Amino acid sequence: MTQLGKVHLIGAGPGDPELLTCKALRLLKEVDVVVYDRLVSPEIMALIPATTRLVAVGKEAGYHCVPQHRINEILVELASEGLRVARLKGGDPLIFGRGSEEAAELEASGIPYDYVPGITAAQGAASSTHVPLTHRGLATGVRYVTGHRAKDADLDLDWDSLTSPETTLVVYMGAANMVTISAELIARGLPASTPAMAIASATTPRERRVVGQLDTIAEAATGLKAPVLFFIGEVVSLYKAEEAHGLPVSDWLERHGLAAHA
Amino acid sequence: MTQLGKVHLIGAGPGDPELLTCKALRLLKEVDVVVYDRLVSPEIMALIPATTRLVAVGKEAGYHCVPQHRINEILVELASEGLRVARLKGGDPLIFGRGSEEAAELEASGIPYDYVPGITAAQGAASSTHVPLTHRGLATGVRYVTGHRAKDADLDLDWDSLTSPETTLVVYMGAANMVTISAELIARGLPASTPAMAIASATTPRERRVVGQLDTIAEAATGLKAPVLFFIGEVVSLYKAEEAHGLPVSDWLERHGLAAHA
Ligand SMILES: C[S@@+](CC[C@H](N)C(=O)[O-])C[C@H]1O[C@@H](n2cnc3c(N)ncnc32)[C@H](O)[C@@H]1O
Ligand SMILES: C[S@@+](CC[C@H](N)C(=O)[O-])C[C@H]1O[C@@H](n2cnc3c(N)ncnc32)[C@H](O)[C@@H]1O
Repeated sequence: MTQLGKVHLIGAGPGDPELLTCKALRLLKEVDVVVYDRLVSPEIMALIPATTRLVAVGKEAGYHCVPQHRINEILVELASEGLRVARLKGGDPLIFGRGSEEAAELEASGIPYDYVPGITAAQGAASSTHVPLTHRGLATGVRYVTGHRAKDADLDLDWDSLTSPETTLVVYMGAANMVTISAELIARGLPASTPAMAIASATTPRERRVVGQLDTIAEAATGLKAPVLFFIGEVVSLYKAEEAHGLPVSDWLERHGLAAHA
Repeated sequence: MTQLGKVHLIGAGPGDPELLTCKALRLLKEVDVVVYDRLVSPEIMALIPATTRLVAVGKEAGYHCVPQHRINEILVELASEGLRVARLKGGDPLIFGRGSEEAAELEASGIPYDYVPGITAAQGAASSTHVPLTHRGLATGVRYVTGHRAKDADLDLDWDSLTSPETTLVVYMGAANMVTISAELIARGLPASTPAMAIASATTPRERRVVGQLDTIAEAATGLKAPVLFFIGEVVSLYKAEEAHGLPVSDWLERHGLAAHA
């Protein structure tokens, strides 16, 4: 029997390859195989050595859909062959990443695993737009919710608890339901004039921003391409239109002597 | 007149130096001076080149206290001398980091600046304890609040909105007020038996964990040394006592040919 491998459940961050953690970058260069989501940016995929085996399990778009139970099986199979596997996910594996569901499966099969955190989309968007997640006098806390609704189900959010005016609300996976979400929040008492922002592909060269208020943001964001994140709260009032974030990604790849791998 | 420098407001992450982003590590090696908080781990300080000027503005313990307005002045002064400055903060600069307050001061003085996000304490604690921040069926979202109370003021939290049972509640700066916080949450309807965890110095060799429930966690955590974070929510039920996280930090420093600088 072959020795068991190991699975690293790794957060890739929001897209800018320089926002990978040092640990994530090291592991991506060490592992035998990378199992990755469609959310992982092409700039990050370009950092993986050309000889590393790649398995796409992207859940949408061009790829045909790999269901979660099949992803779990793939991870178990690869590790059972004795391989070191990087399971690479957008953002952080433990924030709307289903990392802990895959971990439960690995545990049940006796496969060793660990987690490597990643900068979550909200943090990437905050840094690049200069809109803080907390700020004295504007937000004493921050809350991440999902705007995604399971097939045929109602959006199951605890609406009353979401209208805390001193909390920055960040909606992940909200693009399709933002009309409902903002209407519900307004109905429960959050002012229609609450500042709101939508950010697409934060920290990548494809980043786009739309700033408005709670009652207009869903409409204003319809032109944005996925992935899109929504910020709702007084902190958005600090937004100033300004130059795009740092260094173009291609420069960075070049400066590190890296070529595209796709 | 000298050319203006620039200030990078950089998140150092929770403590493990390998959880720095690639961008943070690069900048720490490029800048002229590092202005750092007491929350930044010694393991991370060890990565800064020995020739780099260091300015400690730690807000507690051994250091005498540098008030926020003086920190702002120091940053403006250094950048006005034409220096490139890293303002290094624990975790993420835009989550309870006052990064945006320092930025406002820099902006007012016409000093260029940018942000580099960092893994926030909650993410470090989640990865190292294997307790997810969200998990299907247990938590549809996560909320970060501060348990700190301004001098002589009451804890100004929107208690009713905090008792959402499907939200993981993470309390930063809560150690001193955890007795009050848990009593208030229970009074508003969160079950006393809600699983709860306290983590000290997550992701460092000093990491300690205590697991219990909402009505016992304040008491159970009294022996922990700062910094301490609290997780409250059903996700904590997934906790299993297990081996400490990954690689000892000293190994990592050695493997990268780095020596301590303190
Ligand atoms: C399945 S969730 C995964 C979240 C991820 N684990 C994280 O921590 O960022 C996918 C959602 O994340 C958000 N997202 C991820 N990356 C983003 C980016 N670069 N810009 C904007 N939103 C992003 C979008 O709301 C998207 O619908
Ligand atoms: C002033 S706040 C700064 C938070 C930081 N900006 C972040 O994003 O993690 C300080 C609080 O962060 C938490 N904290 C920071 N680092 C931690 C660690 N390694 N382990 C546990 N808690 C930590 C503690 O609750 C501490 O009281």
